[in-house]
Amino acid sequence: MSQDSFDQKKAWILQDIAHTLSGAKDASPKGSIDELCLPIMDTINAHDDMVTTSSCSGRVSVFLEGHKLKEDHVKVGAKGDGGRWLYVTHDKDTLNGWYRQPIFHYNHVDASTLDEKVRYVLFKFEPLILHVKCRDFDTASALYTTAMNCGFRESGINVHNIVAIKISMKLDIPIGYLDEATDKVVLFVDENYLEIVTQGSLTRFRENERKLLQLHDAITALVQSSSNKQSKDRETFEERRERKKREGLERQKQIQVERVVEEMREAIEEDILEDLNQF
Amino acid sequence: MSQDSFDQKKAWILQDIAHTLSGAKDASPKGSIDELCLPIMDTINAHDDMVTTSSCSGRVSVFLEGHKLKEDHVKVGAKGDGGRWLYVTHDKDTLNGWYRQPIFHYNHVDASTLDEKVRYVLFKFEPLILHVKCRDFDTASALYTTAMNCGFRESGINVHNIVAIKISMKLDIPIGYLDEATDKVVLFVDENYLEIVTQGSLTRFRENERKLLQLHDAITALVQSSSNKQSKDRETFEERRERKKREGLERQKQIQVERVVEEMREAIEEDILEDLNQF
Repeated sequence: MSQDSFDQKKAWILQDIAHTLSGAKDASPKGSIDELCLPIMDTINAHDDMVTTSSCSGRVSVFLEGHKLKEDHVKVGAKGDGGRWLYVTHDKDTLNGWYRQPIFHYNHVDASTLDEKVRYVLFKFEPLILHVKCRDFDTASALYTTAMNCGFRESGINVHNIVAIKISMKLDIPIGYLDEATDKVVLFVDENYLEIVTQGSLTRFRENERKLLQLHDAITALVQSSSNKQSKDRETFEERRERKKREGLERQKQIQVERVVEEMREAIEEDILEDLNQF
Repeated sequence: MSQDSFDQKKAWILQDIAHTLSGAKDASPKGSIDELCLPIMDTINAHDDMVTTSSCSGRVSVFLEGHKLKEDHVKVGAKGDGGRWLYVTHDKDTLNGWYRQPIFHYNHVDASTLDEKVRYVLFKFEPLILHVKCRDFDTASALYTTAMNCGFRESGINVHNIVAIKISMKLDIPIGYLDEATDKVVLFVDENYLEIVTQGSLTRFRENERKLLQLHDAITALVQSSSNKQSKDRETFEERRERKKREGLERQKQIQVERVVEEMREAIEEDILEDLNQF
């Protein structure tokens, strides 16, 4: 492995991605990588000077705000203090009829009975978001410009040459509130309205996928043009396939090593706890 | 004026701002600068290495999407092709009862009757957004970090060292559609629901103002610490007031010159058109 700090970080991140992907086979829904993002991640990570640090292919969620009253003001959309997701999906095919889950109660609520402290329930559509760490500012600039040209107009560069690739296609809709007296989630819109916003979300899911493909094509062109520039003596297709296979095996080995280490660590922790309990 | 290109651009931009501000007295609502932004803009523009290039203090709007069908897909939230604002306000004190304007018709609309091509009407709350051009990447980084630390988590740096200062506090709510048969704007939510989202917008306006003040304080500290660093022999308060006065007069003069030039240009254009018409 190169001593260069970007290369080192990239290797760690790729290892982590491989780990998560192998973990996803264990049917753990949390911490898995969205399938729709995998092809574009592969393309980006094939570039020597880029690595994906986080990704979300787009999702629909229903969120209950946390407790909102701070010392001197009311927080909006609070994530902390008891805020929690009531529903999340990244898969448009599972969206149908989400609002018929028994957790949701329907009732007319007069606007005048709600005050600032009410914990609202928000329906959200959030489009694709990708974070890509780049070796240098020039690479970050090129990626940023490519994304902007594809219509990802909310993109920006953070410090440390991380490009946030974002597009404006959100929905953010108050649909209900938490009735503190009964601890029930009460929706103050009807199922017909929720069906309308579900249809709107399906349209957005489709448009989002189209934009993802467009971005993938543009980044493929960027990666190719810069790798053409970089090295005339670069590896052949066969050499690359061999190298990828070798790297894949290395990663697999590394994952196995990590699992054994993890198991040993747990066993040792248990031993220590047992020892402590004897006193 | 310095020959440095940042200084030159900054001088032009400040001149433009002064022009717009003097124009705002002409009671033109469009193209004016939001009053709430003026103090923070002054603070930023007092820094030698920063200049504000655009600003919006936060607003509520109701937007009718443009025609949506493209060759192979449906556009979401289309700004072009007939998309237009039905209502905009930056002033929370004027928000009360906005939904009672005669342009809005109310009707139950069955979800199944709406297809992908429907032009939706969207109710939006958009918080403060500020764009600041910086002389160099270090200044941009420092400003970006200051904004992030104040909770403006959607911020980013564009190329050309422009920092976009943004916070996540949006509402984006489909509330109706354009009935193509009658060309009427039909709202499929009731006034009670619109009152609820209006209350939510008022809470956001207040939280937005609080965050703006917090950001202003943090940027003031940033500007002071970097100007302390920059020059020990910097001007006194009196000298600065004198210089500001001088620069203000210069700008006023420049604006008058531009007006006269503009009038002359129009007169000359008219002459030429008359000459052409004689042939």
